[in-house]
Amino acid sequence: MAVQAAASTTADKAGAGASLGPAAALSCRECGERIPLGPVFACEACFGPLEIAYEFPGGDPAALRERIEAGPDNIWRYAPLLPVPADVATKPNINPGFTKLVKADRLARELGVTGSLHIKDDSGNPTHSFKDRVVAIAVEAARAFGFTTLSCSSTGNLAGAVGAAAARAGLRSCVFIPHDLEQGKVVMAAVYGGELVGIEGNYDDVNRFCSELIGDPAGEGWGFVNVNLRPYYAEGSKTLAYEICEQLGWRLPDQLVVPIASGSQLTKIDKGLKELIALGLVEDKPYKIFGAQAEGCSPVSRAFKDGHDVVRPVRPETIAKSLAIGNPADGPYVLDIARRTGGAVEDVDDQRIVDAIKLLARTEGIFAETAGGVTVGVTRKLIEEGRLDPSLTTVVLNTGDGLKTLDAVAPTTGPTAVIRPNLDSFREAGLAS
Amino acid sequence: MAVQAAASTTADKAGAGASLGPAAALSCRECGERIPLGPVFACEACFGPLEIAYEFPGGDPAALRERIEAGPDNIWRYAPLLPVPADVATKPNINPGFTKLVKADRLARELGVTGSLHIKDDSGNPTHSFKDRVVAIAVEAARAFGFTTLSCSSTGNLAGAVGAAAARAGLRSCVFIPHDLEQGKVVMAAVYGGELVGIEGNYDDVNRFCSELIGDPAGEGWGFVNVNLRPYYAEGSKTLAYEICEQLGWRLPDQLVVPIASGSQLTKIDKGLKELIALGLVEDKPYKIFGAQAEGCSPVSRAFKDGHDVVRPVRPETIAKSLAIGNPADGPYVLDIARRTGGAVEDVDDQRIVDAIKLLARTEGIFAETAGGVTVGVTRKLIEEGRLDPSLTTVVLNTGDGLKTLDAVAPTTGPTAVIRPNLDSFREAGLAS
Repeated sequence: MAVQAAASTTADKAGAGASLGPAAALSCRECGERIPLGPVFACEACFGPLEIAYEFPGGDPAALRERIEAGPDNIWRYAPLLPVPADVATKPNINPGFTKLVKADRLARELGVTGSLHIKDDSGNPTHSFKDRVVAIAVEAARAFGFTTLSCSSTGNLAGAVGAAAARAGLRSCVFIPHDLEQGKVVMAAVYGGELVGIEGNYDDVNRFCSELIGDPAGEGWGFVNVNLRPYYAEGSKTLAYEICEQLGWRLPDQLVVPIASGSQLTKIDKGLKELIALGLVEDKPYKIFGAQAEGCSPVSRAFKDGHDVVRPVRPETIAKSLAIGNPADGPYVLDIARRTGGAVEDVDDQRIVDAIKLLARTEGIFAETAGGVTVGVTRKLIEEGRLDPSLTTVVLNTGDGLKTLDAVAPTTGPTAVIRPNLDSFREAGLAS
Repeated sequence: MAVQAAASTTADKAGAGASLGPAAALSCRECGERIPLGPVFACEACFGPLEIAYEFPGGDPAALRERIEAGPDNIWRYAPLLPVPADVATKPNINPGFTKLVKADRLARELGVTGSLHIKDDSGNPTHSFKDRVVAIAVEAARAFGFTTLSCSSTGNLAGAVGAAAARAGLRSCVFIPHDLEQGKVVMAAVYGGELVGIEGNYDDVNRFCSELIGDPAGEGWGFVNVNLRPYYAEGSKTLAYEICEQLGWRLPDQLVVPIASGSQLTKIDKGLKELIALGLVEDKPYKIFGAQAEGCSPVSRAFKDGHDVVRPVRPETIAKSLAIGNPADGPYVLDIARRTGGAVEDVDDQRIVDAIKLLARTEGIFAETAGGVTVGVTRKLIEEGRLDPSLTTVVLNTGDGLKTLDAVAPTTGPTAVIRPNLDSFREAGLAS
């Protein structure tokens, strides 16, 4: 824990005077200890994870709804509920969010849903994954703490989100990747012109190195979005909850299906929904949150089924790379939320992931990343097993874009026919209407 | 012209009673002949191209602006100005448009722009190119004319846009591609589950076959978005003009830089701007339109420079595949608009295209398709040569997403360093802040 202590020392200096809107303090999710805002991620008392504690202004919910609706078409419309300065929308930022909530009637019919089914399609974000939301908040924290380099380790979506956000904000970026990453992913990470550093080793080696760097003077002034800026970064996922409710006409959905990587997104969606209720922006009624994993990396699903409170780490082996975290930090919180709300955690195998990607594309014209195949696949499975009520309002998250995981569907996706360029050949192929 | 005549006969049946909002008739751009709305694309009198003639309702511009602003966050907010039914927004459609207009201050500084520079970033569309706009209008025309199959020939963006739009609309789709297309592009076209037909031949063979099919009973009930539905399809590009002006606060930009493939997009943007002026939605003032081509496919730029009114076809040889139309149908109209507005048509070579993609990514966090490299590269060149006024308000179009043309930047985009996973190696590489 030497690393965390060192980071905390930097924090006390850097955080002083930072003005991050309604964010009042950092608070430990385990022991409740409160400390001033700063670039720290673990409680000094109990080493539990820190999260943002807010002091929201009171007042008329209708007035707040109106203020939000008059805001920009991105996550900054919710600035009064986020750890960001009040003038955030005036600064250069990639302005993610307010992505489409697609009413998926054709998918609903195929799945036997008689209520309403919606896809929250985060492939519409600037770099085409939900990571733009969390990184955008981390950028504001980095600015507040005087950091000049934005950093992360990544093998995929996060690298692009950090590169793009830093470029637009005018911050230096430095992204660490395993040296032998596929060229396509390297290009997506490198094109924004920041430093891209290949590390001779695997992804674990990259992460270990980053932890070292955070505790070293060489890392002075560096904001690692998902390490020392993690408490801010993670809050970005609340905006998914806000948008879903606003887009449903300021109503809570009955059921949500959310992918689980570290589990952070699911916990923050729950936090966002509870905030909307507390602020009177939506009516207080029950909702169920379902977590979705790939069978090849399903430690939380396994713990849920076994009735455990702790999550036993696994070695990931799945095509859903963006969810392949074998030791999910927020696993226990996810289990608690799924149980408390009456939801569940379920998993699907790679074949069902691919089938679900194609099903969503065929019915709604949405080409999802493998993580979207996981949520749609799990939704289908839960309906088949009678565990998700098809008569209610359900929202399924698609957190990324199929263009980034072409390899997952390539082996089984091709032309339906190959013909010679003439009408006879066309007719022979049975293609005429 | 037998094909067109046949199509026109179908049209007279199919078009009867079609209600497409303010669209009143088809009108020939050459001889002015007016015919009823239908799936026809060429004038029976002079074989000139047909376009939509409107009867817009008169009335208070302020009221129309308000109505538009209260509309959905997609192109259907402009339904009163488009050839679509009034209830278009209630039907399943991929709902493209209202993409970001990014104020590009960091790019402006690098280019020496002292006025305001904006990127209209159409990579934010559902399938990440401007083609979603035109296809969405074609879908409505297909429905109006009772077509049940949506079709096109394509080697790229259009295939995905047609596949996705048809899937969501519940129409059958059939996309024709050369049989030897790269696997990535095949996947993007095939994943939406429509028919995807490989044609043994090159792209010219594919197009020739499609022309045959339109004139044959085997193609009965087929809407080829950019052939027999072209007059409707093309109007989708007007929405770029509408959005740019609305996003500038209902003001015309002073200068626009638009890519040229067939030239249709540029002519429709000009049409859209003129409509806004005529309806009193923006003040009437001069604007200049600049066309941008890749040097390896620059027939319009060549004609502009040579002072010709006609465009001599070329064989394309450029990395900007989405602009590689050697015989651009709307070339003469583009020349007229560039000259009439005081703009220009210019081209840049492949190296400058790649440099411009990286410049835009590095300064604004926007990863553009090669077509975006062409417009940004041409903007830079025009400024360097003193032909685009850097003190004015300029809008540059990015019509597609860099994820679709990774190959263009891959050879020159990689890690800035490869190090061993330790701090000494990190310091040696000079990466510490």
